[in-house]
Amino acid sequence: MDIIDKLSEVFKEFPGIGERQARRFVYFLMAKNGAYADNLTKLIQDLKKEVAQCKECFRFFVLHGDAKNVCEICSDPNADATLLMIVEKDSDLESVRKSGIYHGKYFILGGLVPIVEKNTKKQVRVEELKQKAKSNKQLKEIILAFSLNPHGEHTDQYIRGELKNLGIKISSLGRGLSTGTELEYSDNDTLRNALKNRQ
Amino acid sequence: MDIIDKLSEVFKEFPGIGERQARRFVYFLMAKNGAYADNLTKLIQDLKKEVAQCKECFRFFVLHGDAKNVCEICSDPNADATLLMIVEKDSDLESVRKSGIYHGKYFILGGLVPIVEKNTKKQVRVEELKQKAKSNKQLKEIILAFSLNPHGEHTDQYIRGELKNLGIKISSLGRGLSTGTELEYSDNDTLRNALKNRQ
Amino acid sequence: MDIIDKLSEVFKEFPGIGERQARRFVYFLMAKNGAYADNLTKLIQDLKKEVAQCKECFRFFVLHGDAKNVCEICSDPNADATLLMIVEKDSDLESVRKSGIYHGKYFILGGLVPIVEKNTKKQVRVEELKQKAKSNKQLKEIILAFSLNPHGEHTDQYIRGELKNLGIKISSLGRGLSTGTELEYSDNDTLRNALKNRQ
Amino acid sequence: MDIIDKLSEVFKEFPGIGERQARRFVYFLMAKNGAYADNLTKLIQDLKKEVAQCKECFRFFVLHGDAKNVCEICSDPNADATLLMIVEKDSDLESVRKSGIYHGKYFILGGLVPIVEKNTKKQVRVEELKQKAKSNKQLKEIILAFSLNPHGEHTDQYIRGELKNLGIKISSLGRGLSTGTELEYSDNDTLRNALKNRQ
Repeated sequence: MDIIDKLSEVFKEFPGIGERQARRFVYFLMAKNGAYADNLTKLIQDLKKEVAQCKECFRFFVLHGDAKNVCEICSDPNADATLLMIVEKDSDLESVRKSGIYHGKYFILGGLVPIVEKNTKKQVRVEELKQKAKSNKQLKEIILAFSLNPHGEHTDQYIRGELKNLGIKISSLGRGLSTGTELEYSDNDTLRNALKNRQ
Repeated sequence: MDIIDKLSEVFKEFPGIGERQARRFVYFLMAKNGAYADNLTKLIQDLKKEVAQCKECFRFFVLHGDAKNVCEICSDPNADATLLMIVEKDSDLESVRKSGIYHGKYFILGGLVPIVEKNTKKQVRVEELKQKAKSNKQLKEIILAFSLNPHGEHTDQYIRGELKNLGIKISSLGRGLSTGTELEYSDNDTLRNALKNRQ
Repeated sequence: MDIIDKLSEVFKEFPGIGERQARRFVYFLMAKNGAYADNLTKLIQDLKKEVAQCKECFRFFVLHGDAKNVCEICSDPNADATLLMIVEKDSDLESVRKSGIYHGKYFILGGLVPIVEKNTKKQVRVEELKQKAKSNKQLKEIILAFSLNPHGEHTDQYIRGELKNLGIKISSLGRGLSTGTELEYSDNDTLRNALKNRQ
Repeated sequence: MDIIDKLSEVFKEFPGIGERQARRFVYFLMAKNGAYADNLTKLIQDLKKEVAQCKECFRFFVLHGDAKNVCEICSDPNADATLLMIVEKDSDLESVRKSGIYHGKYFILGGLVPIVEKNTKKQVRVEELKQKAKSNKQLKEIILAFSLNPHGEHTDQYIRGELKNLGIKISSLGRGLSTGTELEYSDNDTLRNALKNRQ
């Protein structure tokens, strides 16, 4: 394996990148001058230095001021501490945050619960979530916010089971018609949810 | 215009058919023997004879027994007459019906209400709907079931306005995540509805 | 099966039409008035009356003047009778004809030769083509014009074999880059043909 | 702009990467451990060190043995020095090379010639190409191998004009049907080329 092959292999791990595009990335970098490569590698190294994983919600955040362990959402006194939204991954959190519709706290589970799996607890942060839920006295509602597919639904059920004895209200994101849904082409589950949740 | 052009023009009016496919239909028919054409034309003529528009819900239905004016749903004593679902068109009704999730009555509006339009009432069956709602003593809830796009939302608002003084409960299909929705790629309206309608 | 099912079944045979769209066609026709159905069925019946299959090239053509057996291309004294282009089907002929690049005669094979097949001659008009090639004294070149896929290539080879002893020049459409081909994404066969046929 | 924004901006320059995927790359890197980032940045730096641009053909190549200026194709005594294929960019060369159909030399133009442009010569290596063609005594044929689109065709014409007085045969990749081309859906240029180049 020469350097082109090796770097292609690494780019192939990037989300959504196949072999062909991985090689195009390498050719792209070859054609760029040294300053470009220097800038890119510096930014990648800076990323690891300037970013930390929040001890509260487990999201990755850019270090700022003297906060070293807790992200700006978890340390925000204006965030609604009675609400905790559980999401699968950082990009889900960013999507909700950008929408500006939610002002509570978050918790990143770190994945979805596999449907067939023995060591679930090692794969997602269930124990950390339970600890957090138990120790947080202000918390009134946990909102499960997973994508609506079999993995997401299984995770929703699993987390509900794990949290059910804590005496905290647990809700899941509402289901029904989403933007662009056409009645004529809707699947039965979507129609059923839309009818059940009519208002 | 020769016969090929003329028939292509008619096929171009079929839903979802462009010029190219319309011509392919004509070539397809040319290559078929006379018996095929005879069968097709007979079925098209039969369709007009064997199908009627229901006087109650305005859907098209296959004539059966001695019912001449009222479809099998409207004449079904087991259908829940306290519920009336308003849909845009026949194929929406068939989609809901096939799902098996709803057992009430239907009403076909005959289109969506244009957002900029003077003669709305001529375009959709608003007056017929009001008459039906007023005269039906069993009716307890009207369910507005339109596709979730600007036209559908405008229609929902318009119909609510028209029916508001009748003293009947009016609901709309629930909104939120639909099958396959990924949190990361959701639009703000879907996220907002999903959060508002959490449960 | 009611009339809706029956007519859907027929529309499902139309090229490129699946079950869902077939039913949409039926609902579309139901909603149209009787005059529309009458016009459509009349045109379909007229098509069978006003169209004939040419005895020379086997294309379907609109009857005109007193020609009853031979299409306007085959009877055109200005068409170049030294060239005969063999195509799979009517729509291929129309595509070439519309381009205005060819002014010779045509012959419609009636299909491609299946790669695994015992009764090839029953499926395509090989015998008719051989008769035509033998009896046509003006003919100097037969141009094989099939789509470039395994079926088309097999047909090209098969027809060449059948015609090789007739002493007529046989050519196939040129191969290489087609409009929009990007070198970076080309398959090996296209590159090989493009290089071999460089000029 | 924080580090996430800055790194996203750089990834957005990668070929085929939009804003959304650029940010996913950053989140992906954040979640990876430091060793992954170290490996990636080392490979990117190595790329610049281990890769050089060939003085003969201008492709980027991995340094090997004591060759410092000339790539392994240009220094290969078995490569056919009578043929020189001109391509737009490195990935085109790799595509042809991988196909195994060509065994001559290459020259990378460094871009396509813009259709409306004053300083063409500054943008692509026309002068370098002319020098190479003049000084290479073995050269018998220059093969222009550009993608088949308006830019590529304009470049083909432009380079032909620049080289016409050198007394070397100039050819372009053949045109016609490419793999998968269906006659029915072909554009006129492709049909014209396929007919003209029949054989």
